[in-house]
Amino acid sequence: MGMALSLGRRGLGRVWPNPNVGCVIVRPCENGGRVIGRGWTADGGRPHAETRALDSIDAAGATAYVTLEPCAHHAKTPPCVDALIAANVSRVVIATGDPDPRVAGKGIAILRAAGIDVMIGVREDEARVDMAGFLLRITENRPLVTLKLASSFDGRIAAATGESKWITGPDARRKVHAMRAAHDAVLVGAGTVRADDPTLTVREMGAVRQPVRIVASGRLDMGAANLLATINYAPLWLCHGANVDAQKWVDQGAKSLPCDLQGREIDPVDMMHKLAAAGLTRVFCEGGGSLAASLLGAGLVDEIVGFTAGIVLGAEGTPSIGAMGLDRLADAPRFDLVETTRIGADIMHRWRRALLYAT
Amino acid sequence: MGMALSLGRRGLGRVWPNPNVGCVIVRPCENGGRVIGRGWTADGGRPHAETRALDSIDAAGATAYVTLEPCAHHAKTPPCVDALIAANVSRVVIATGDPDPRVAGKGIAILRAAGIDVMIGVREDEARVDMAGFLLRITENRPLVTLKLASSFDGRIAAATGESKWITGPDARRKVHAMRAAHDAVLVGAGTVRADDPTLTVREMGAVRQPVRIVASGRLDMGAANLLATINYAPLWLCHGANVDAQKWVDQGAKSLPCDLQGREIDPVDMMHKLAAAGLTRVFCEGGGSLAASLLGAGLVDEIVGFTAGIVLGAEGTPSIGAMGLDRLADAPRFDLVETTRIGADIMHRWRRALLYAT
Ligand SMILES: NC(=O)c1ccc[n+]([C@@H]2O[C@H](COP(=O)([O-])OP(=O)(O)OC[C@H]3O[C@@H](n4cnc5c(N)ncnc54)[C@H](OP(=O)(O)O)[C@@H]3O)[C@@H](O)[C@H]2O)c1
Ligand SMILES: NC(=O)c1ccc[n+]([C@@H]2O[C@H](COP(=O)([O-])OP(=O)(O)OC[C@H]3O[C@@H](n4cnc5c(N)ncnc54)[C@H](OP(=O)(O)O)[C@@H]3O)[C@@H](O)[C@H]2O)c1
Repeated sequence: MGMALSLGRRGLGRVWPNPNVGCVIVRPCENGGRVIGRGWTADGGRPHAETRALDSIDAAGATAYVTLEPCAHHAKTPPCVDALIAANVSRVVIATGDPDPRVAGKGIAILRAAGIDVMIGVREDEARVDMAGFLLRITENRPLVTLKLASSFDGRIAAATGESKWITGPDARRKVHAMRAAHDAVLVGAGTVRADDPTLTVREMGAVRQPVRIVASGRLDMGAANLLATINYAPLWLCHGANVDAQKWVDQGAKSLPCDLQGREIDPVDMMHKLAAAGLTRVFCEGGGSLAASLLGAGLVDEIVGFTAGIVLGAEGTPSIGAMGLDRLADAPRFDLVETTRIGADIMHRWRRALLYAT
Repeated sequence: MGMALSLGRRGLGRVWPNPNVGCVIVRPCENGGRVIGRGWTADGGRPHAETRALDSIDAAGATAYVTLEPCAHHAKTPPCVDALIAANVSRVVIATGDPDPRVAGKGIAILRAAGIDVMIGVREDEARVDMAGFLLRITENRPLVTLKLASSFDGRIAAATGESKWITGPDARRKVHAMRAAHDAVLVGAGTVRADDPTLTVREMGAVRQPVRIVASGRLDMGAANLLATINYAPLWLCHGANVDAQKWVDQGAKSLPCDLQGREIDPVDMMHKLAAAGLTRVFCEGGGSLAASLLGAGLVDEIVGFTAGIVLGAEGTPSIGAMGLDRLADAPRFDLVETTRIGADIMHRWRRALLYAT
């Protein structure tokens, strides 16, 4: 199952709206077993991991380890349970169930009805972390949100003058590109577009499925020269106020997602519903501080990643996170540490929403 | 030398105004050598490491590894070079020279004149880090300053309401006590005393030499009930404006260190000179944000230690570091990463002033 999990992680950011599943086929033998097939969800979501693992092998009597309950419904491809039955495997070991109502237990039932020995719950917690984006989309109708912040030792993202280039170093920036590649989309607020005119593509990472670039802007009152210049290379989606005309942007190739407003701002909960409906499972938010505060305040942030540099900017610098209107410490969003490590001259620390992945 | 260095570190915070030296005596034999004596500077600074290592052993023909050039001057005790010569050691290996003008090369010269083989510069960089407080006091007339900050993920030390208890957890607090114990003194600004009425002692760490508690206050316009209540247990020093009468505090057992003013605040450079003159080699500053900004702005901070919790407080929270008046990123103080690690539910990250320990 460890191998299946790590194969599954290859699909992160590449398979939406499908789950990033991994599958390993093992032929039992005296000293435990021999791997005869390996697969993971292909870029774009098809074919599925099971189909690829079973491809051109004789799996009769073998055991299939799969990180998610195999699908039971006819969609663009025939269901994976059929493929497993046709291949004559004698045992299927599953990490976690698929909450999709079209599957939810049916996959297991069909396999058992075909006389296959099915075991479920092996390394389930890890599988639920790896596929959290897919699971949240099904169960909460929103994608997983990772929030990234690069700041000084004292939590500032720009000096008093607004100067913000190169607070963290090249290794941290490279790591950010790898993180973008492991998400379906990159999200920023309109303030960041107005200030930085970013491109938000994945660069120098070899062949990847370019993440969708998303801008949250109530009024669409911004230029976005670099985003538009690269629109044939990576999609641009705009979450904007439903009262605003986005035709000019659509004409230039952007996708318009009208969202409810909360005062002058986009309602972050509605925005996430719209993104889930459009198929996204994993969103990487790169700020700025106002959008980050809004997402945190609404309880929509699942993971936070800090890159911290050994530089001190002082209280006049721009805070990494905007006003949150918290009255008591007890109301502040809390996260559990996943890891802290050196990245070049900086540190990276990753945290996960407390209790997020409890099963 | 590795053993001598680690013995030397036992003296951190306990030996001021003396250096924290370590010494190992090795009798050469076929398979390299056998340790026959070990010593480190005793609490309070005397006896010295060499004297303790040579105590009640026969060191004739042996090699002495010592982290700092042995002293050559008669102070409260006879010089260590005399002890090494009297013990008939045949070789002395030294990590780094002593810049104290009463020693500076004289120790080595006397040993060589006595026919002892002397080697210098072995693991010198490590020794200079370990004894940086002593070296800075001699060469720059100021102690080493470590600045500690415990903050939220976004660099806040209190919520908008001022609530600041328990941002970081019990393991981080215990680590702070261990760090206090490894310094000669703990320093805070008057704002912290007014807000928190702290005690600033080392607790639950076994027997330690309690660090001096220092408060920087221009006007001495504060209560300090807990500091005064524990004054027989740990010293209290006040760095105050030279124009203010401290007699009331002296009567209660505090030590008065009148310092130059810079506007309404204590001149941080003069404060550090006064503390060095009073014998301190290692000062642990625990804030608050105004004093921290002042020390950083004056280039007086050698190490920064961050404790970061997985909680987000938002921009209304109190910033960990006050206003610094920086115009350009290039002027911001920069530090090199030493380590980052998990401490309970929080992370600790330590950084050292860039170029500080270049020899
Ligand atoms: N170091 C880093 O990691 C990093 C990363 C990103 C940004 N930055 C810096 O951060 C600064 C920009 O930050 P910012 O806080 O001003 O802007 P921001 O968070 O990027 O964008 C805020 C804008 O987004 C729109 N918006 C729509 N819905 C929103 C919602 N629910 N909550 C908040 N905003 C919403 C609003 O613009 P409309 O008027 O269009 O509705 C709002 O003014 C720039 O200086 C940039 O360089 C640094
Ligand atoms: N989480 C943590 O790690 C932590 C640690 C410490 C403090 N805190 C919090 O920080 C807050 C206090 O911070 P603060 O910034 O207000 O006060 P502060 O830095 O502790 O003290 C500032 C005061 O120190 C005196 N001072 C003398 N010389 C100075 C100099 N060169 N630079 C700056 N100040 C000098 C001045 O008082 P006079 O008028 O007497 O001259 C000044 O008002 C409290 O809320 C406390 O709870 C948190």
